[in-house]
Amino acid sequence: MTSLVKRLLVGRPLATAEEYRTRLPKRIGLAVFASDAISSTAYATEEILFILVPVAGLAALHLLVPISLVVALVLLVVVLSYRQTIYAYPDGGGAYVVARQNLGERWSLLAGASLLVDYTLTVAVSVSAGVAAVVSALPELLEYRVEIGVGVVALIAVANLRGAKESGTLFAIPTYLYLVALGALLLVGLWRTQTGALTAAPVDPEQLAALTGGSTLGLTGLAGALIVARAFSSGAVALTGTEAITNGIPAFRRPESRNAARTLGAMGLILGSAFLGISVLADRLRPLPSEDETVLSQLGGAVFGRGSFGYGALQITTMAILFLAANTAFADFPRLSSLISRDGFLPRQLSHRGDRLVFSNGILLLGGAAAVLLIAFGGSTTALIPLYAVGVFTGFTVSQVGMVRHHARLREPGWRRAQAINAVGATATATVLVVVVVSKFTTGAWIPVVVIPVIIGLFRTVHRHYLDVKRGLAVPVGYRARPRRNIVVVPVSRVHRGAVDAIAYARNLHADEVRVVTVVLSDEEAAKLRRQWKHAGLDLTLDVIQDPYRQLVNPLLRYLDRVQGADRDAIVTVVLPEFVVEHAWQRLLHTQTAWWLRTRLRQRPNTVIASVPVPLPEEVHGRLPWRRRRTPAPAAAEDVALTVSSVPPAGRE
Amino acid sequence: MTSLVKRLLVGRPLATAEEYRTRLPKRIGLAVFASDAISSTAYATEEILFILVPVAGLAALHLLVPISLVVALVLLVVVLSYRQTIYAYPDGGGAYVVARQNLGERWSLLAGASLLVDYTLTVAVSVSAGVAAVVSALPELLEYRVEIGVGVVALIAVANLRGAKESGTLFAIPTYLYLVALGALLLVGLWRTQTGALTAAPVDPEQLAALTGGSTLGLTGLAGALIVARAFSSGAVALTGTEAITNGIPAFRRPESRNAARTLGAMGLILGSAFLGISVLADRLRPLPSEDETVLSQLGGAVFGRGSFGYGALQITTMAILFLAANTAFADFPRLSSLISRDGFLPRQLSHRGDRLVFSNGILLLGGAAAVLLIAFGGSTTALIPLYAVGVFTGFTVSQVGMVRHHARLREPGWRRAQAINAVGATATATVLVVVVVSKFTTGAWIPVVVIPVIIGLFRTVHRHYLDVKRGLAVPVGYRARPRRNIVVVPVSRVHRGAVDAIAYARNLHADEVRVVTVVLSDEEAAKLRRQWKHAGLDLTLDVIQDPYRQLVNPLLRYLDRVQGADRDAIVTVVLPEFVVEHAWQRLLHTQTAWWLRTRLRQRPNTVIASVPVPLPEEVHGRLPWRRRRTPAPAAAEDVALTVSSVPPAGRE
Repeated sequence: MTSLVKRLLVGRPLATAEEYRTRLPKRIGLAVFASDAISSTAYATEEILFILVPVAGLAALHLLVPISLVVALVLLVVVLSYRQTIYAYPDGGGAYVVARQNLGERWSLLAGASLLVDYTLTVAVSVSAGVAAVVSALPELLEYRVEIGVGVVALIAVANLRGAKESGTLFAIPTYLYLVALGALLLVGLWRTQTGALTAAPVDPEQLAALTGGSTLGLTGLAGALIVARAFSSGAVALTGTEAITNGIPAFRRPESRNAARTLGAMGLILGSAFLGISVLADRLRPLPSEDETVLSQLGGAVFGRGSFGYGALQITTMAILFLAANTAFADFPRLSSLISRDGFLPRQLSHRGDRLVFSNGILLLGGAAAVLLIAFGGSTTALIPLYAVGVFTGFTVSQVGMVRHHARLREPGWRRAQAINAVGATATATVLVVVVVSKFTTGAWIPVVVIPVIIGLFRTVHRHYLDVKRGLAVPVGYRARPRRNIVVVPVSRVHRGAVDAIAYARNLHADEVRVVTVVLSDEEAAKLRRQWKHAGLDLTLDVIQDPYRQLVNPLLRYLDRVQGADRDAIVTVVLPEFVVEHAWQRLLHTQTAWWLRTRLRQRPNTVIASVPVPLPEEVHGRLPWRRRRTPAPAAAEDVALTVSSVPPAGRE
Repeated sequence: MTSLVKRLLVGRPLATAEEYRTRLPKRIGLAVFASDAISSTAYATEEILFILVPVAGLAALHLLVPISLVVALVLLVVVLSYRQTIYAYPDGGGAYVVARQNLGERWSLLAGASLLVDYTLTVAVSVSAGVAAVVSALPELLEYRVEIGVGVVALIAVANLRGAKESGTLFAIPTYLYLVALGALLLVGLWRTQTGALTAAPVDPEQLAALTGGSTLGLTGLAGALIVARAFSSGAVALTGTEAITNGIPAFRRPESRNAARTLGAMGLILGSAFLGISVLADRLRPLPSEDETVLSQLGGAVFGRGSFGYGALQITTMAILFLAANTAFADFPRLSSLISRDGFLPRQLSHRGDRLVFSNGILLLGGAAAVLLIAFGGSTTALIPLYAVGVFTGFTVSQVGMVRHHARLREPGWRRAQAINAVGATATATVLVVVVVSKFTTGAWIPVVVIPVIIGLFRTVHRHYLDVKRGLAVPVGYRARPRRNIVVVPVSRVHRGAVDAIAYARNLHADEVRVVTVVLSDEEAAKLRRQWKHAGLDLTLDVIQDPYRQLVNPLLRYLDRVQGADRDAIVTVVLPEFVVEHAWQRLLHTQTAWWLRTRLRQRPNTVIASVPVPLPEEVHGRLPWRRRRTPAPAAAEDVALTVSSVPPAGRE
C-alpha cells in the first residue's frame, strides 16, 4: 500500500546508469536554474519601496532608479565573476566546492551553511511572493496565504521527488511566458508613460498616511544614509539565485561549461534589464507598497487595466515563475547537502539517492524547513526579505575569494585577468554583505547571523562523531574476535507451540548454557505454568520469577544479571518468541511486552536479541473477511536478476 | 526521565498485596460511587425545560413537576431492584456479570457494550455540565468551554492513574459541600417562595422569543405526546449512575454488600428529594433554559443573589460534584473493561493493572474517548444528553432481566418476592428505554443504537482471534519441535570491528551454514570492500550483491531466498550488527538500514533476526559535553529481591 502510493507519487525507480538521460538542454536549463534569479524581479523593486516610502513618503521615490542602477552594477560584477567559476569548475563549482579546494574546511563550511540557509529562504520567499501575486488578483484568498503557501511547497517537493528532467520540462513554458508578459508590461508601460498617455494615478492620502504613520522624515544625515543602505539591501535580493547555475553545471548537456556560461550570461541580461525596467516604470506610476496587492500587480493594473487579459496573464505567469524559483532551490539544496554529507559533515541519509535518482531526504528536509518559515513569518515576503540576503552574499563572497586563490594556485593562461575579475567580485559582494548585515541587523538579518554558525557547529559535531566511530571501529591488523561464553535465555509467557519451537531453536545454537524463564504475577499463575511445563515434557528447567509489582521487564533484567554472573564479557542471547501478525489491529491484541523487552534489552551491554517468529495458525487469518496475501506483489525493481559476486577467504587465494 | 515524570504523576508502585489498603469506607464510597447519580440533579431539570419551553413556551412549565415525579418513581423502582443485585453479587454485580451468569454471552456483551458507552458519556456529560457551572458564573470563559473540558478530563485521568483511594479521599469533601449548598438553596428557596418573599422574575420576552422561535404550540395530540415523552427521556438521565455502586462492591469495606446497599439507599433518597426539590423550585421561579447560564445558576442567583457567598458556593460545589461524577466513570470503566478483557473480548492490555494497581490502559482509553466526545459536541451538555440514556437503560434492563432469571435458577429463601421486585424493575426500565429510543432517535439516540452493536462486533472479533490463536498454538501431547536446518547470514555494510565481532558470534552458533553478505551500489564500492575483506583475513567467503537501484533491502531479501534454496522449512538466522547509540541524535547519524531491514525481515517466514550490539568506542561518548551514564538509576521497585523458583524437567522428578 505505502509502496503503491509512493509509485503513484514519484514514478518507477530509475537505475544509476539512467542519470545521463536526465541532462538538460540550455533552454530548459535557463528555466530550471535561472528562474530563481529572474523571478526576483517580481518583488525586488517592491521591497525597495517598502523601505523608502514609510520613512520618507513619495519624495523618496527619486532614489528608486539610482538604487536600482547600483544593484544592476553589482549584478554585472557577479555575473562576470561567476563565468570564471563555471569554466574553472565544470563538475559543479558551488561556493562549497570552491572554498573547500582553495580555502580549506573552515571556509567551505561557512559557504555550505550560508547556501543551505539561502536555498531554504529562496523557497519561502519565492512561494510567499508567488502567493502574493495570486492574492493580489483574488483578494478574498488573502487570509489563506499561509495555507496556500505550505500547499505549494508540498506540491513542488513531490514534483522534485519524481526527478529533475520531468520537473524541468514541465516548468519550462511558464518561465518564457513570464518573460513575454513582463516584456509586454514594460514596453507598453514605458511607451505610454513616455508619450504621456498614462500618468501616475492620484495617491490615496489615507493609505499613504497609514503607511508612513503620518510623519514624513527626510533622508538626510546618518539615519537617512542607513535607510538608503537598507533600501539597497532590499534591492540586492534581486541577485539571489545568480549562483544557482554554478552548482548545477553537470546537469547541462555537453559541453557543460560553455552551455552553462551562456545561460548565465542570458540570465544576467534578462534579470538586469527587467529589474531596471520595473524600477523606471514604478518611478513613473508611483505605486504604494502594500501587503494586500503587489507593486507588480498595481503596475499591471495601471498599464493593462485590472480586468484585462494582459493583467491576468501577468499575475499568473508571475506566480508560475516564482514557484519555479522555489523549484530551483529544490534542485540545489539536495545536491549541496549530499556533497556536504559525503564529506561527513551531515548525516549520511542526505547522500542517499532515492530510487528516482534524486536526493529524497534533502528534498523533504528543504520542504519542511521552508514550510516552517512560511508559517513563522505569516507568509509575508516583506517579513522574510531581511533574512534573505545574508546567506546569499556570504556565499558569493566566499566563492569569489576562493576563485582569487584558485587562480593564484594554478596560474593557468590569462590567470591575472581572471583573478582581477574575481577580486573585484569578492570586494563588491563583501561590501554588499556588510551593508546588508549592518543596515538590517535589527529587522531580521541577525537571524542568519545566528543560524549560520549554529549550522557550522552542527557540521563539526556530526563530522567528529563519524571520525570517532570510524577510528574506534577500525580493524587492527591481525585482529581476531576473542572467544566469549554464550548464555541463551528464552523468556516465555506460557507454554504454547511457539514457545516450544523457540526453545528447540535455542538448544540448537549449541550455547554454553540454555535457560527458559517466565515471569508470573500470582501464585495461581505460577502453579498453572508449572502444570503446563510438566505436561509439555521438555528436558529443561523452567525458572519462574514471581513479581509483586507486575512489571515483567525489570525482574527479567535482574534475572539476566544473575544468570550472567561474574563473567561480564559473556554474551547473553535472549531468544524472544514473537507473534507474527498480519494486520495492525491484531498487533494490538498481543500485548506489547516483547516490544518493551526489546527496547530495554537493547540498552544492556553484550546482549543479543534473537526474535524467533511464531506464526499464528492459518485459521486465524483464514477466518477474516478482509484477508490478504502475506507477501506483497513484487515491485518492478524486484524482477531484475540479482548480481552476486563472491570474495573468497584471504587464505585460499 | 520518562520514568521520573511517571513517578511524579502517578506515585510509587504498589505491590498486588497492597490492594486491600485501598478499600473505601461508606462515607467515601458515597462520594466515589454516588456522586455520578447525585450530580445529575445539576442538569436533569434543566434538560426537561430545554425540551418543553422551546416547543410550548412557559405554559408547558406546569408539566415539569409531574414529569419529575414519574422520574422519581422510576428511580425508586431501580434502587429497590439494585438492592437485590448487591446482595446476590457481593463480588461486584454489574450488568455484565449478572447477564453473563444468567443470560449467556450474547446478553452480557450487550450489557458490556452499553455500559462502556454509558461510562464514556458520563464523563463527557458531567464534565461539560461542570464546565457550564463555571461559565455561568464567569461568562467570559464561555468560548473556551471545550478546552477547559478536555483539560479537566486529563486532570481526572491523571488523578485516577494514581489510584482509587487517594482520589476518593481527595474528592469526598466536595460531594458533601454540594449537598449542603444544594440543601441550603432548596430550603431557603422553597421557604421564601412559599411565603411569597420571592416570586418569579418577569420573563425577558426577547429571550423567550429567541428560544421558542416565535411560535408557541400546544402540547396536544400525538406531537404533543412525543414532546412530553422526550422531556421525560431527558429527565430520566437523573437515574444515570445509580448502578455504579453494584460494579464497585468489592471496593467497600467489609461487610461489602451491606455497606454498599446502605450507600445505595442513601443515594436514592438524596437524589430523589434533591431532583424533585429543584423541579418544584424551578416551577415557582420559572427560569428560561439557556446555553449561557445553567438553570441551577439562575435559581441560585434568584435565591441567594448573584454576588453572594451562597451563589458562589453553589456554583463551585456543583462544578466539583460533576467532576467527581466523571471520576466515578473512571473507577468503573476500567474495572468493566478489565472484566471483559479477562473473558477474552477486549485486548489483554486492558486487564493489566499498572504499578499503582489501577487499570491504566482503561483509564487512558476512557479519557481519550470522552475528550473526543467533548470536542465533537462542542462541550454542550444539551447536545450530548440524547445519546446518554440509551446505554444506561439498556444496562438497567439487561441487569434486571438477569436478576429475574437468577432468582428462578437459585430459588433462595424469599426468591419470589425478590424476583417480583426485579421483574417490576425490568419492566420499568425497558419501558423507559423504548420511550428514550423512540422519542429521541432523530436528535441523537441513533448514535448509541449504531455504536453499541459495532462494539459488540468488536468484542466478537477479538474473542474469535484469541480463541483461534489459543487453539492453534496448543501443544499436542508428545509434541516435539522437528529438527530444522539453520542457515546464518551476516549482512555487513563495511568491514569494521563490530562486523568482525558479529561474524565471530555467528560462527559460534554452530549453524549448518554461515554466510557473510554485503550490498554495494557501485563498482568502486565493491572493489573497496574486497580490499577490506582480504585485509581483515577472515576465513569465510564474502558475497557481494551489486544493486543498480540502491535499495539494499530488496536485493538482500532475494539473496536470502536464494541461500535458503528449496528447503523452505529451514530457518534463516539473520545476524544484524547494530550500533548502540547513547543519544537520539546519534541514531540519526547511523543510517536506518538496519531498522528497515528488521521491519521487512519480520514479514519473512522462518526468519530469526538476531541483533548483535556494536558498542560505539568510548571516545565517541567521552568527547561530548552532555555525556551521561549508560545505565539509568534503578527505580525503587528494582531494589526488591528477585524471587525465582525453578521447575525441573519432567523426566527428572
